[in-house]
Amino acid sequence: VPNQLLTTPFEHDVSRPPRSTWTVQTEKVISYEVTVERNLLEPDNPTLIRAGARREDARPRRFCIADANVHRLYGRPLREYLRRQGAEFRIYAVDASEPDKTMATALRIVAAMDEFGIDRRREPIIAIGGGVLLDIVGLVSSLYRRHTPYVRVPTTLIGLVDAGVGAKTGVNFGEHKNRLGTYEPPVVALLDRSFIATIDERHISNGLAEVLKIGLVKDATLFALLERHAKDLLRERLQGESPTTEAVAREVLRRAVHGMLEELQPNLWEHTLERIVDYGHSFSPTIEMTALPALLHGEAVTIDMALTTVLAAHRGLVSRSERDRVLAVMAELGLPVWHPTCDVEVLRKALRDTVRHRDGAQRLPLPVGIGGAVFVNDVTDTELAVAVKDLVELSESR
Amino acid sequence: VPNQLLTTPFEHDVSRPPRSTWTVQTEKVISYEVTVERNLLEPDNPTLIRAGARREDARPRRFCIADANVHRLYGRPLREYLRRQGAEFRIYAVDASEPDKTMATALRIVAAMDEFGIDRRREPIIAIGGGVLLDIVGLVSSLYRRHTPYVRVPTTLIGLVDAGVGAKTGVNFGEHKNRLGTYEPPVVALLDRSFIATIDERHISNGLAEVLKIGLVKDATLFALLERHAKDLLRERLQGESPTTEAVAREVLRRAVHGMLEELQPNLWEHTLERIVDYGHSFSPTIEMTALPALLHGEAVTIDMALTTVLAAHRGLVSRSERDRVLAVMAELGLPVWHPTCDVEVLRKALRDTVRHRDGAQRLPLPVGIGGAVFVNDVTDTELAVAVKDLVELSESR
Repeated sequence: VPNQLLTTPFEHDVSRPPRSTWTVQTEKVISYEVTVERNLLEPDNPTLIRAGARREDARPRRFCIADANVHRLYGRPLREYLRRQGAEFRIYAVDASEPDKTMATALRIVAAMDEFGIDRRREPIIAIGGGVLLDIVGLVSSLYRRHTPYVRVPTTLIGLVDAGVGAKTGVNFGEHKNRLGTYEPPVVALLDRSFIATIDERHISNGLAEVLKIGLVKDATLFALLERHAKDLLRERLQGESPTTEAVAREVLRRAVHGMLEELQPNLWEHTLERIVDYGHSFSPTIEMTALPALLHGEAVTIDMALTTVLAAHRGLVSRSERDRVLAVMAELGLPVWHPTCDVEVLRKALRDTVRHRDGAQRLPLPVGIGGAVFVNDVTDTELAVAVKDLVELSESR
Repeated sequence: VPNQLLTTPFEHDVSRPPRSTWTVQTEKVISYEVTVERNLLEPDNPTLIRAGARREDARPRRFCIADANVHRLYGRPLREYLRRQGAEFRIYAVDASEPDKTMATALRIVAAMDEFGIDRRREPIIAIGGGVLLDIVGLVSSLYRRHTPYVRVPTTLIGLVDAGVGAKTGVNFGEHKNRLGTYEPPVVALLDRSFIATIDERHISNGLAEVLKIGLVKDATLFALLERHAKDLLRERLQGESPTTEAVAREVLRRAVHGMLEELQPNLWEHTLERIVDYGHSFSPTIEMTALPALLHGEAVTIDMALTTVLAAHRGLVSRSERDRVLAVMAELGLPVWHPTCDVEVLRKALRDTVRHRDGAQRLPLPVGIGGAVFVNDVTDTELAVAVKDLVELSESR
């Protein structure tokens, strides 16, 4: 029911109780575009300069915020690109590792934006970097003049398939990750896997963990592609050196993004706490923090997925052979299925924390075969201990 | 069209151009309540403790943020109220004058919230104070864990009829007012005019300026009520010492809020730049800044309204007698119609700034008679000079 103002009628009757109530009801339409691109920084490619702009502009103005590492690698081609497109621009480089993810960093960006001056109706800001950079700039975008459109250009694989396509923004505060943030989708997210050509193999594995997640819980075809082409994807960093691997890399990226968006889109504000994309994210936050800095995010997610796959196998939701295929793909993708710091006590604590975050219930996604999932609320400590023991043995026997 | 994911189909065909696009479309339903109340802090009144809560709670937890001035006056009754309601609570007092309206203040509130600990599904935070306090807490609410519900309890008249009932939040940054903010309505706004019993008369006048605005551009009955009862409203601070003045005060508040909500509700995010509630806010931002600290917000708004009324009279939109009634009500309400710092040059600059904020057009609301309005884009410097000269004479002749 859009735009309804429900109200009691006006009255002058003094005898009525002095109370009146309005219910203000309205709807905000959210719409944004996610597109797979190649070679965004090629001088003649109009995609980036046109993204989110109302119309073609002879002299576009753009404020770009780039991760400092990305700036070192792509600062020059980015500058050349913007010059070639006739833009007046500023590229603001920001250190964007986890400790930089603060409101102070966000405010430094705001100050630089003020200095450059931005007409938010014509001049979308451009964020280029990994998840941390995109989260910070997304927050700035939602706050600056109560909303200034921005374009997301993820430069990591995890950014391409996860942080880059959603609406979450945020910075850490005190001890708390993402304590302050908003849901603010970009006007456009441009997914260009050219950027990940320069990333080290471990970080490719890290991103493939989130791709694998989508395969495991909702896309058996994606899983099969990973199973068959893991080594090539990893070695070629999804750059597609042959026609076959090009088709595979493209399809893997497309399916991962599609799966992610299918889940995000009806639940953009996370009102539903049973989120299939939370698979791999029930135990992993605690695992990641406990093992710090030994495990990357995707590595901790993989350990979570390995554990819950073994647990699901015990429940008969996943067959032994499916379980073994899953663990085999993880290994092929260069991902760990276990880490010594993760004992039963750590996992119990992890589950308790997750229950608190999910409003008092486990709402634990478990795989069903390959490509399906179910939510359960009854995982016991004993069950967890058995799964842990099993997983340790399986990982040692590999 | 809710929840649509528009996409190109999957394909393995290597010959197709490597581009795929998704449009993520969804709608966010916004719903909040605004209610007129009396005596919110009476120990047995369950309204405040129940506001925004999912269910009755034997031991509710509440984090209250109160303007330091409000805390001095109402801290004790608030504490007694919360105790009597069986709540575990913390009242956090904040200096909330204009220079305190910063992200630093917002982050201090966040730190205090972290210390208290908040289950955002069960424990809405409560903001008690004037416009500045409500703006800061509203921002905190939208950022804290990507949204934590809050209850607005305005304690100034301008808060009751303006800042308290809308969705805008914000803090200043550098030289810029409200440079950082969001649109985040409270779950409930509780409007209790009991709080304004202790406010000095000048600030009552200040609030009545925004009430008058609604009367002038959209509610002739409200205007007539102000015209007839200005002195009583002012002297009694809308507390209704007799049955008649009680009915009048109640009706004035109700009509002002209703008019405001009718305009806000279809345009909560201010996508439409022709906003009737911008009446009195075209020249006043510059007037207020130029005269700083001589004029309160509502006083500058009144000067803007007086000027545009005179201008509208020159265009024949308002009759001479209507014009004189308007200026007379302003005087009755204890509001200035002119200030020496506001010469033609200042007003020209003001209009230029407003044109920039309204995307290149004046979109200037002018009154049509009493209770109507029209938007114009063609006010000239000459016309402005004539209106100024006229207004100076009219104000001197009073």
